Amino acid sequence: MNRREPLGIAVIGTGRMGADHVRRIDRVISGARVAAVVDVDEERAKTVAAGIDGCTAHTDADEAMASPDVDAVLIASSGPAHEAALLGAFARDLPVLCEKPLTPDAASALRVMEAEQALGHRRVQVGFMRRYDTEYVRLKALLGTGQLGRPLMLHNRHRNVASPSFFTSSMLISDSVAHEVDVTRWLLGHEITAVTVLRPTPSSGAPEGLRDPQFVVLETDGGALSDVEIFVNCGFGYQVQAEAVCERGTARIGDGHQLVTNMAGRWGGTIAQDWTERFAQAYDDEVQAWVDATRRGEVTGPGTWDGYAAAAVCEAGVRALEQGGRVEVELADRPPLYA
Amino acid sequence: MNRREPLGIAVIGTGRMGADHVRRIDRVISGARVAAVVDVDEERAKTVAAGIDGCTAHTDADEAMASPDVDAVLIASSGPAHEAALLGAFARDLPVLCEKPLTPDAASALRVMEAEQALGHRRVQVGFMRRYDTEYVRLKALLGTGQLGRPLMLHNRHRNVASPSFFTSSMLISDSVAHEVDVTRWLLGHEITAVTVLRPTPSSGAPEGLRDPQFVVLETDGGALSDVEIFVNCGFGYQVQAEAVCERGTARIGDGHQLVTNMAGRWGGTIAQDWTERFAQAYDDEVQAWVDATRRGEVTGPGTWDGYAAAAVCEAGVRALEQGGRVEVELADRPPLYA
Amino acid sequence: MNRREPLGIAVIGTGRMGADHVRRIDRVISGARVAAVVDVDEERAKTVAAGIDGCTAHTDADEAMASPDVDAVLIASSGPAHEAALLGAFARDLPVLCEKPLTPDAASALRVMEAEQALGHRRVQVGFMRRYDTEYVRLKALLGTGQLGRPLMLHNRHRNVASPSFFTSSMLISDSVAHEVDVTRWLLGHEITAVTVLRPTPSSGAPEGLRDPQFVVLETDGGALSDVEIFVNCGFGYQVQAEAVCERGTARIGDGHQLVTNMAGRWGGTIAQDWTERFAQAYDDEVQAWVDATRRGEVTGPGTWDGYAAAAVCEAGVRALEQGGRVEVELADRPPLYA
Amino acid sequence: MNRREPLGIAVIGTGRMGADHVRRIDRVISGARVAAVVDVDEERAKTVAAGIDGCTAHTDADEAMASPDVDAVLIASSGPAHEAALLGAFARDLPVLCEKPLTPDAASALRVMEAEQALGHRRVQVGFMRRYDTEYVRLKALLGTGQLGRPLMLHNRHRNVASPSFFTSSMLISDSVAHEVDVTRWLLGHEITAVTVLRPTPSSGAPEGLRDPQFVVLETDGGALSDVEIFVNCGFGYQVQAEAVCERGTARIGDGHQLVTNMAGRWGGTIAQDWTERFAQAYDDEVQAWVDATRRGEVTGPGTWDGYAAAAVCEAGVRALEQGGRVEVELADRPPLYA
Ligand SMILES: [Mg+2]
Ligand SMILES: [Mg+2]
Ligand SMILES: [Mg+2]
Ligand SMILES: [Mg+2]
Repeated sequence: MNRREPLGIAVIGTGRMGADHVRRIDRVISGARVAAVVDVDEERAKTVAAGIDGCTAHTDADEAMASPDVDAVLIASSGPAHEAALLGAFARDLPVLCEKPLTPDAASALRVMEAEQALGHRRVQVGFMRRYDTEYVRLKALLGTGQLGRPLMLHNRHRNVASPSFFTSSMLISDSVAHEVDVTRWLLGHEITAVTVLRPTPSSGAPEGLRDPQFVVLETDGGALSDVEIFVNCGFGYQVQAEAVCERGTARIGDGHQLVTNMAGRWGGTIAQDWTERFAQAYDDEVQAWVDATRRGEVTGPGTWDGYAAAAVCEAGVRALEQGGRVEVELADRPPLYA
Repeated sequence: MNRREPLGIAVIGTGRMGADHVRRIDRVISGARVAAVVDVDEERAKTVAAGIDGCTAHTDADEAMASPDVDAVLIASSGPAHEAALLGAFARDLPVLCEKPLTPDAASALRVMEAEQALGHRRVQVGFMRRYDTEYVRLKALLGTGQLGRPLMLHNRHRNVASPSFFTSSMLISDSVAHEVDVTRWLLGHEITAVTVLRPTPSSGAPEGLRDPQFVVLETDGGALSDVEIFVNCGFGYQVQAEAVCERGTARIGDGHQLVTNMAGRWGGTIAQDWTERFAQAYDDEVQAWVDATRRGEVTGPGTWDGYAAAAVCEAGVRALEQGGRVEVELADRPPLYA
Repeated sequence: MNRREPLGIAVIGTGRMGADHVRRIDRVISGARVAAVVDVDEERAKTVAAGIDGCTAHTDADEAMASPDVDAVLIASSGPAHEAALLGAFARDLPVLCEKPLTPDAASALRVMEAEQALGHRRVQVGFMRRYDTEYVRLKALLGTGQLGRPLMLHNRHRNVASPSFFTSSMLISDSVAHEVDVTRWLLGHEITAVTVLRPTPSSGAPEGLRDPQFVVLETDGGALSDVEIFVNCGFGYQVQAEAVCERGTARIGDGHQLVTNMAGRWGGTIAQDWTERFAQAYDDEVQAWVDATRRGEVTGPGTWDGYAAAAVCEAGVRALEQGGRVEVELADRPPLYA
Repeated sequence: MNRREPLGIAVIGTGRMGADHVRRIDRVISGARVAAVVDVDEERAKTVAAGIDGCTAHTDADEAMASPDVDAVLIASSGPAHEAALLGAFARDLPVLCEKPLTPDAASALRVMEAEQALGHRRVQVGFMRRYDTEYVRLKALLGTGQLGRPLMLHNRHRNVASPSFFTSSMLISDSVAHEVDVTRWLLGHEITAVTVLRPTPSSGAPEGLRDPQFVVLETDGGALSDVEIFVNCGFGYQVQAEAVCERGTARIGDGHQLVTNMAGRWGGTIAQDWTERFAQAYDDEVQAWVDATRRGEVTGPGTWDGYAAAAVCEAGVRALEQGGRVEVELADRPPLYA
């Protein structure tokens, strides 16, 4: 492809996840636009499309994918609807980003895999977004260096404040632990060979009948273990943590302190080496905020008065440096324009 | 304005900072495009423009600003060149994002302020990017709640690995502490009334003759103090930290652990409440990576095999949950397409 | 008993552990003295006894326990020797502190328990020292408040730099995990009903043939789980950590940050409320150091010159406070006595 | 001296501090006993002495010091009373541990220094207990290695929940910052040459008229700076922190995480290397608790049942290791003696 024009994307499913992806493509990321949205609820599709230039609304995914404006498909509908949407995209050879799960069971996933093989090339990315999380990315990179030696165990914690009303005991595995299944396979580069599930007495904070929490141990073909605490009604917050235990050290993510290692008698992490690393997010948000405000015809950030005040204080500071001691700042009156 | 089309931006100055802004507008943020780049070095301007669809290269800022494709200006040239560029933008009434410093001294800043007042409306945002840093934003928000009471002191640390060769002792104030000057004014909502600079014996790691580190104390018209350690040859990393000491508690940012408070007998921070908060960056990067790869005609993320393997493991996991104990995973052979 | 005189203790076994207990009783704690030491190695016993006023050396435990100076017994000999020593102490109705394990197997422990029951009163404390560790004590106290709700799971990490040459795979359980067995029983107040041991591929850092690490899951009669990573050749340090996962929050110890909780949207810990809490250890060590130095006829701590210099600086400080600004300190010449 | 018998100490002053020292000598440390207590309040002296074997009560310090049982003096009376007590101890050539301040002003401190010089040898240790705090000791040791290079700045925080009713603005310097004065001199090995005090608008949480907080900058004859935030009505807790900024890195103590360094691109701390280091406090407290309980005729710690239960669980664990999988634990009934 190697195209310069923005990628036209059809978003299938505009529930919480789909609507968030629409916002992301429209207002956050670069190089793409929402060309079409699809939802079985026509009103919802129209509402979502309304705010976006050149975006059409559909109730039929095939109709949306047939549009010449559509270059790629993002599937965010419910799991059981994924297989049909994937096969529809394959029929037009469109690239797909498919939210997890690929499909609800192994048999249907095998059918999708066979259909993609029939195309002769890969077209699907599955929405295991943790592979893009900064902390997981750092952990993967560290494991890749070999500094810590071979991974022996992975300890995972996966906690939600509360589970939705439709959540069943088996969804703790298929919906939640599914993430750790992928994380384990990806971080270790192993396939999983066996699963053990232990069931403590459920928390009184869990809905009646829900086996929550559970403790899952995954064994891999590389001889490693990956244990998972899954607790979807922990009450206190959303927490996803992983600790890799390797032959020469450990590395932990997810407690809000980036990547923390134990190695050679020391615990700790790395320090940024320059401002492009430390303030990358600030620069991105600064310029995005300026673009957004400018398109609305507004000025919202620090302005000329702030630039002037900083200059006046710094001049006093330089005199204080040169003379030693304390120097008072002389500031002009603040003009009404900057009130 | 309230426009739907992308904002066409002229970037003036394509040194390290300017080139990074070009990359940001072109490949990271949404709603804008680089319409023109300007540099006194014609070759550099052409090289930067070459990779961007519809971007023109100039050595003259006025010529670039005259283009009908240019809706706004980002000034990233050297400080002494800012005044002329700002006045040029004012002449065409163009919105400006001007890298800090606004201008190199208070007198020129006053001239710019007068010119903007003559326009009758504000047009300038100054590049104090720390106001957009997640941690500073959280600190500002917390101070705004009043939970901690009135701020009494602000302790700042500003450390660079090494200073560039052209750095002078007064640049520690005018170039570096300038950030803390703005941060102090913004966080506290006070103007600064006096500056004291203390000068310990310079580090042997600093270039001969450079007064590094320095210790600066700012006094404000709200009766608060803001002290700044500026150390531009600390050797170990880039570190920017701030601790607000208030009547009922303290709040600290910049040690890689988000916002940490002391309050009512406890220290600590907040826990994310859901995945949209915890994994916002992962989702953004996931979709951006997919868009970028798709435009290049590639599939780079987790694919159908990963979706299938997760489904197969979860099926075994659900059986383990239901039966209790350990269940082996049955996995199909991995097709060559997913090798 | 309720005695005022120091307790005369016979220490049985003067290997690494026993010698450390001798030092502790003699030089650290209060209210006791080492009245006798026993070791099969006569020379060793004599060497240990030599430095201690009124301490006799023995190769026979019964002989030592027969001494009228012996009020209590500390057993620090090898595990297989514990049963005989315990029965000997029971014969004289002496109180015992017995290093763990009580005895090497359940059958012999049952015999000791029957012998103690025959006495009609309890005489034995077992050396599960973690019950006295400040962090475990805090964790136990927090669980006791009920703030976090019922404990559901306990995650334990137990890591040693390297195992001794005589260590076998089963000793990872009986020697190392034995601590977590006690910790689990004590923290949760449950008995353990089942044990599962998982065995990842051993670390290449472990001696040939040693199954290290292992992953152990304990089930309790209160419906809780306690999992243990035991890794006795981790290479990087000695680390003992525990995280209790309860119905309304979690609490973690052992990462060098005291007790850290997750609760109600916040993570963190408590702050000391006064100096008696923050500096208790400093005061204890200060007075002990002064007593030790004084008994040796020495003065080692901060002296009169330091008291004078502090007074002179504070006087200047008070003037600086009153006048505002900077005040120079006038200091007398330092007399040779304080050089 | 080099004595084996316990040191007989006269404690002068039995207020909060003095009474705590009496408890410490009597019940915590080793090698000393409280031989006499002195207080102007006779009842108080008698009450304190009552619980201690062979301890006499006095209202006159000289009388106490004259006792042949008194080998050394601990002065914990009010500051103005120190000079007389010190001179009295010098008259009998007794070793002294004198609580800080040595005396309330520089002139009286000089007199004490002259009197000690007249003795011809040092007799006084001043109660700057921070020199014995584990974290300060580690910081001092680290600075001593030279790893971080020469110290350039020391940032100190000193926060109290609330000040006592008699506290005046100058006592923030002479009573509180006095600690940082000593810490600065000791850690850096410099004398202090100048003091600057800055006074932000007082906190509304401070008593009317008290200048709280203050910000103090100490300059040293080694060209270093030491700044001190003193805030005695911070409300949230007692916090004492120090951060040394050196030529090649920084080291921070006092935030409950031991010693945390920044060095060579990494932040973090050290990990204990064995159990004697990690559990030293637990062993000391365990044996002290056993001694205390035994002297009272009680058994309070983990007992024979706990030793047996651990043995039974470990036996099941070893079987689980050998067989693989899950093994149930067989436990005898719990005898009434261990209920
Ligand atoms: Mg976009
Ligand atoms: Mg863009
Ligand atoms: Mg003792
Ligand atoms: Mg004692």
